Amino acid sequence: MASCAEATPYYLPVGDEVEIFLAAFESRLPVILKGPTGCGKTRFLEHMAHRIFRESGSKSQEVKQPLYSVSCHDDLSYTDLIGRFLFIDDTSTWIDGPLTSAVRNGGICYLDEVVEARKDTTVVIHSVTDHRRQLFIDQTSEAIDAHPDFLLVMSYNPGYQSLMKDLKTSTSQRFISIGFDYPDADRESEIILHESGVDNSTAQTLAKVGVHIRNLREHGFSQGVSTRLLIYAGRLMKQGINPRRAAEAALIKPLSDDEDIQQAITDIVNVIWP
Amino acid sequence: MASCAEATPYYLPVGDEVEIFLAAFESRLPVILKGPTGCGKTRFLEHMAHRIFRESGSKSQEVKQPLYSVSCHDDLSYTDLIGRFLFIDDTSTWIDGPLTSAVRNGGICYLDEVVEARKDTTVVIHSVTDHRRQLFIDQTSEAIDAHPDFLLVMSYNPGYQSLMKDLKTSTSQRFISIGFDYPDADRESEIILHESGVDNSTAQTLAKVGVHIRNLREHGFSQGVSTRLLIYAGRLMKQGINPRRAAEAALIKPLSDDEDIQQAITDIVNVIWP
Amino acid sequence: MASCAEATPYYLPVGDEVEIFLAAFESRLPVILKGPTGCGKTRFLEHMAHRIFRESGSKSQEVKQPLYSVSCHDDLSYTDLIGRFLFIDDTSTWIDGPLTSAVRNGGICYLDEVVEARKDTTVVIHSVTDHRRQLFIDQTSEAIDAHPDFLLVMSYNPGYQSLMKDLKTSTSQRFISIGFDYPDADRESEIILHESGVDNSTAQTLAKVGVHIRNLREHGFSQGVSTRLLIYAGRLMKQGINPRRAAEAALIKPLSDDEDIQQAITDIVNVIWP
Amino acid sequence: MASCAEATPYYLPVGDEVEIFLAAFESRLPVILKGPTGCGKTRFLEHMAHRIFRESGSKSQEVKQPLYSVSCHDDLSYTDLIGRFLFIDDTSTWIDGPLTSAVRNGGICYLDEVVEARKDTTVVIHSVTDHRRQLFIDQTSEAIDAHPDFLLVMSYNPGYQSLMKDLKTSTSQRFISIGFDYPDADRESEIILHESGVDNSTAQTLAKVGVHIRNLREHGFSQGVSTRLLIYAGRLMKQGINPRRAAEAALIKPLSDDEDIQQAITDIVNVIWP
Amino acid sequence: MASCAEATPYYLPVGDEVEIFLAAFESRLPVILKGPTGCGKTRFLEHMAHRIFRESGSKSQEVKQPLYSVSCHDDLSYTDLIGRFLFIDDTSTWIDGPLTSAVRNGGICYLDEVVEARKDTTVVIHSVTDHRRQLFIDQTSEAIDAHPDFLLVMSYNPGYQSLMKDLKTSTSQRFISIGFDYPDADRESEIILHESGVDNSTAQTLAKVGVHIRNLREHGFSQGVSTRLLIYAGRLMKQGINPRRAAEAALIKPLSDDEDIQQAITDIVNVIWP
Amino acid sequence: MASCAEATPYYLPVGDEVEIFLAAFESRLPVILKGPTGCGKTRFLEHMAHRIFRESGSKSQEVKQPLYSVSCHDDLSYTDLIGRFLFIDDTSTWIDGPLTSAVRNGGICYLDEVVEARKDTTVVIHSVTDHRRQLFIDQTSEAIDAHPDFLLVMSYNPGYQSLMKDLKTSTSQRFISIGFDYPDADRESEIILHESGVDNSTAQTLAKVGVHIRNLREHGFSQGVSTRLLIYAGRLMKQGINPRRAAEAALIKPLSDDEDIQQAITDIVNVIWP
Repeated sequence: MASCAEATPYYLPVGDEVEIFLAAFESRLPVILKGPTGCGKTRFLEHMAHRIFRESGSKSQEVKQPLYSVSCHDDLSYTDLIGRFLFIDDTSTWIDGPLTSAVRNGGICYLDEVVEARKDTTVVIHSVTDHRRQLFIDQTSEAIDAHPDFLLVMSYNPGYQSLMKDLKTSTSQRFISIGFDYPDADRESEIILHESGVDNSTAQTLAKVGVHIRNLREHGFSQGVSTRLLIYAGRLMKQGINPRRAAEAALIKPLSDDEDIQQAITDIVNVIWP
Repeated sequence: MASCAEATPYYLPVGDEVEIFLAAFESRLPVILKGPTGCGKTRFLEHMAHRIFRESGSKSQEVKQPLYSVSCHDDLSYTDLIGRFLFIDDTSTWIDGPLTSAVRNGGICYLDEVVEARKDTTVVIHSVTDHRRQLFIDQTSEAIDAHPDFLLVMSYNPGYQSLMKDLKTSTSQRFISIGFDYPDADRESEIILHESGVDNSTAQTLAKVGVHIRNLREHGFSQGVSTRLLIYAGRLMKQGINPRRAAEAALIKPLSDDEDIQQAITDIVNVIWP
Repeated sequence: MASCAEATPYYLPVGDEVEIFLAAFESRLPVILKGPTGCGKTRFLEHMAHRIFRESGSKSQEVKQPLYSVSCHDDLSYTDLIGRFLFIDDTSTWIDGPLTSAVRNGGICYLDEVVEARKDTTVVIHSVTDHRRQLFIDQTSEAIDAHPDFLLVMSYNPGYQSLMKDLKTSTSQRFISIGFDYPDADRESEIILHESGVDNSTAQTLAKVGVHIRNLREHGFSQGVSTRLLIYAGRLMKQGINPRRAAEAALIKPLSDDEDIQQAITDIVNVIWP
Repeated sequence: MASCAEATPYYLPVGDEVEIFLAAFESRLPVILKGPTGCGKTRFLEHMAHRIFRESGSKSQEVKQPLYSVSCHDDLSYTDLIGRFLFIDDTSTWIDGPLTSAVRNGGICYLDEVVEARKDTTVVIHSVTDHRRQLFIDQTSEAIDAHPDFLLVMSYNPGYQSLMKDLKTSTSQRFISIGFDYPDADRESEIILHESGVDNSTAQTLAKVGVHIRNLREHGFSQGVSTRLLIYAGRLMKQGINPRRAAEAALIKPLSDDEDIQQAITDIVNVIWP
Repeated sequence: MASCAEATPYYLPVGDEVEIFLAAFESRLPVILKGPTGCGKTRFLEHMAHRIFRESGSKSQEVKQPLYSVSCHDDLSYTDLIGRFLFIDDTSTWIDGPLTSAVRNGGICYLDEVVEARKDTTVVIHSVTDHRRQLFIDQTSEAIDAHPDFLLVMSYNPGYQSLMKDLKTSTSQRFISIGFDYPDADRESEIILHESGVDNSTAQTLAKVGVHIRNLREHGFSQGVSTRLLIYAGRLMKQGINPRRAAEAALIKPLSDDEDIQQAITDIVNVIWP
Repeated sequence: MASCAEATPYYLPVGDEVEIFLAAFESRLPVILKGPTGCGKTRFLEHMAHRIFRESGSKSQEVKQPLYSVSCHDDLSYTDLIGRFLFIDDTSTWIDGPLTSAVRNGGICYLDEVVEARKDTTVVIHSVTDHRRQLFIDQTSEAIDAHPDFLLVMSYNPGYQSLMKDLKTSTSQRFISIGFDYPDADRESEIILHESGVDNSTAQTLAKVGVHIRNLREHGFSQGVSTRLLIYAGRLMKQGINPRRAAEAALIKPLSDDEDIQQAITDIVNVIWP
């Protein structure tokens, strides 16, 4: 987050997600990014945050940090988002948490995989995601009006059906929603090439492996493979590891401990690299 | 809450809710606002608080803050409402919480979505909602007589049937109750126009979409759509997003992950914007 | 609790509860008040505490506070009753809780709705409710002999049958027990008149509504209506609200979210105010 | 516990419990007192502690406190028994808890209703109840050899069958056990007379009521009535309350909320005081 | 633990447990002692610790304490074993817990009844019980190489079958295991004589009672009687208590609250002391 | 971890695990080591860490510690990994935890048996295991870019099938995976010889016992025996303990409390050492 002067992170758009996000930001509408693990939601948001706060010539450049990221888990407390009192020079001093920092100073607060958080944690965002755009801090009796350049963004993976139910209606109806999925083979091949450094032909082969593995979904393997693991396989090959061994380490073993599924992926790998 | 000099927030009455609330305030009767998510309960209360404490020429203007809001969740503790000791200059110092502030200084303390709070938390309000109008603070051995202009207000969504059972009889029988529902199409269209800035015709179209989606309730989609999401759709259109794409981002995806329900809403949208 | 010089709170006796309580106090026998929500247990105790400690010319007037009230909930800890160490001027200083204050200084300690408290909390009262009349404080290694004018009183609602089982025999057999119920129509009418300011005829009508609603118990509506809600209805009418609207806000909606029960109460209301 | 110079508390022996206890103390064998609620276990122990440490002319008189009582509950922590660090003059200072005080200074540590405590709490007593007679304090890395006049005593009510199973074999096999039950009618009448101040005839009548109520056990009322409640009834009569009203307040209502059982006890009362 | 100069505690070997333990200590292999409650596991370890660190003329005499005992319970935390920060003279100061003390200074750390501890607590011992012999302290970022004379020993009672399953394979496979059982009648008689001071004939009679009670196991009484309780019975007799009354207090009542089992043990006692 | 100048720990490779790990490290790909308890995962990682950071002549030698080990358990908190505030000289001072230390200073952070940790704990590693390689510390509002020589490695035992499901897809798809199993008899014999000091023939016999015991898996004994326990048996023999007694202490009793399984292992032992 100290990365103010960096280049805008690489992101290859799939549809009109960039336009929708820019429109939402203009209206300061809170946004949920929906999609499977490893399909690029986090990278998209880093890309957008950089474009909005660093590239443009507007006053948004005064925002201290473009993006405050929080990986949600069911132990995440109200305090972790809002802030806490620390003891400094004999006095309890209030230190802003990431949500409070974004509300006060501007920037995007990003709650990654929000359905992992306890329901009670998400309640704290209600007053910053309706017409009030205010954050109430009980401990300090403070009511902060959100910075004009504050926006709240959350992500979740609708594949975790049972968990989705945990997002309360009164929370979900405060956000517009942008859907994500794995890129098609051409785009994914371009991404693998860019991220792993393998040659074009190997990148295309890896993208094809990805398509085949995802087709296993129809045969009961629900997870799919992330673009990230395909990149990992490419990087191992780039280091001189034999493709079948690289696929075993990066694709077969990480995806499942089930022997049948491992065999099905092995079969795909053996056909591609006979 | 530092918003002392602001204009009274916009609220369009549906029935006699304003009169009932004023009568309750005159008698200092605690109030529960009942209704579905996003139908305007919070905005109504902000409107009333402003009218009572800011517009009138009475002594109520001396009240420091018109409204102390608390979003309830099942981790909300007695301490979060009442206050806590902080360590300042080598000494434990008591800091009032939002309920104590309202009791001591006057103003409305608003417990939003109170059934989300633990039963034990709501017990703390008993002594301020009966003839005593006193708040006992165990930690300081203090008994505070409520300010003449103190009122407690809570909200909940009776659609969460199973949770409603959690509000104890000894709590619920301390409040009068005002019911809310979504506004009719004409009023909702007026609200959408006022809040999103779209033209009158678009506002009426969006209100019609709302009516159609809410009719899906009879077909097993229990949630309904909030006025807020209709306003979101309007704002995206105002930013130049195509109506069907705006509806997808603001209405279809936020309302459900169920494919059948998404299709049903999509059908409605496609008929409206062919 | 700072209400030393106040008038004795209004209480209209139903039977010989005043005599039994005075006899129990003379013998310093701990007392349980049993009865449904909103029938006047708390008010009775405030009345008795005032009579004993404020009206009489005895040494009891030296008691600092007549009544230490604690609303019980299942998060109430041993510490909340007994006291805690606070940090004052670089040193941990012991601050008495409400039970310890009453034991040390005299007065009634009142545990309201005690079955809501955890079983382990009630154990702390054992040594002050048997022949020992001593309170042991582990944290300070202190053993306090109770003030001669100390008495412990608890309340509970036997209608919560399943919770009642939570009061251990070794606890319940330390108390005598006084039963309470809603007043009969004449007495209730007198109370409504006194508390709401409506005229005699309206008070009698409201008392009649109470009788009818309580008769619904025999038809499966177990809660009954508290005298408090009848007073609320009276106060709304006094502010000029139409009786049927007042009944809706104060009687129908607060009592249930079940449509059948709401209709049954509405039917009663419509017959009374046609 | 500051009651050093008091007279030995009144206790009327039922069998050879005094002799067994004295022999156990001579051998420093830990003791469990078993019996129903309100039958005199705590009073017996106070009596014995006084006889051993205050009446005798031996060195035991140097023991600071004869008895350290702890009412067990399932929130009782290791810390509550052993001690804790408090912050005094800028330094964490260790303060002994009741068990540590008894181990260090001599005297009886009494864990009342020990099966209510968590199993993990009782584990702390293992090293002081076997041949080691040592207490290990992890927080201070201290190992205290027990004072020669230290003894551990616990009580429990075997009527709580399901809870009894919670006392681990490795704990229960460290204690000898003395059984208690309600006194016979003659002894109980003597106790009622001594404790309530009623005349002999009334005391005998009350003892007879006790016998009758306890006979209800055979008809499914498992609790029995404690001697304490019979004394309460006597004290109310002594204050001038009519016997049947006294019985209602002290015997019928405290014993059960079940209407059938209340009627059965009422029948007994009506026969005795027609 | 301050018992540096004491005589080696009395222990009568049953098999080759002494040799196995010495060999394990020479190789610094962690040891589990398995056996029923009260059969002498703790005493055996005290005996061995004394022989290894106090009797021998080796450098082991430099070890500060021979034995660090911890009675395990399911509230035992990582902190209780490792240590904690205390606040001393305005600074957080680290204080070693018993495991850290033993690792740092040498000596045996004994986790008594380890299956009572939470699984997560036992994980902390992994790095000191494999080839690393290192303890990692997260709070201080310290990695301590174990003292050459450090050994970890644990005990458990395999009779608690369901709990045994709680010891993870990755924990149990770090220990060799030595089995214990009650001594045979001759040895047990010798122990009773040595520990209770009764004459030889009484000791033999008590040992015989022990054999008979343990035979009840085959009739559904699973616990057995510990040698400790037989010694208790002997001590009561030594104080002049009649054998049948001593047996009731030390054997019958402590072993069970079940009337059938109490009768079965009473029958044994009546046959022995007619 | 202070072991900077030590010799590289002994490790005998089974397949190409060394090459895969080196390639993963070159690309800074996070690694999961999968395999049963006691098969050498931890030792492998110590070996690799030493080779990478201590043997090579590169800048990696500047890394302060090659390996930060954390034994995971379900009480492991975010704080244990990230760090905490301690109170030093009147001020809260931040102390890095093991993950933060590795991220900041370089080196491998090793989460041993990661599936034992709570799901919410593993979420903290997301941002250091994707393209960001950043660690966010909410408490200090710090965002640390990972040291170029930082790598995260985790281990788990897929035999705990039910727990495996606890590793979220969004976590597991951030790692490549290397599989481990027990070594074959020749290699295991070599390891036993190296680690226990027994002669070659005994080592081969012990390796044969290991093979036989692991074959019991097919007969319902799921655990297998670790190489570690075979080494323990060898060490006991080296100390002069008879092979059958050594096998009892090191193999039979530690592996199971089930009598049938103990008998099956005893049969194997009796055949080998008749």
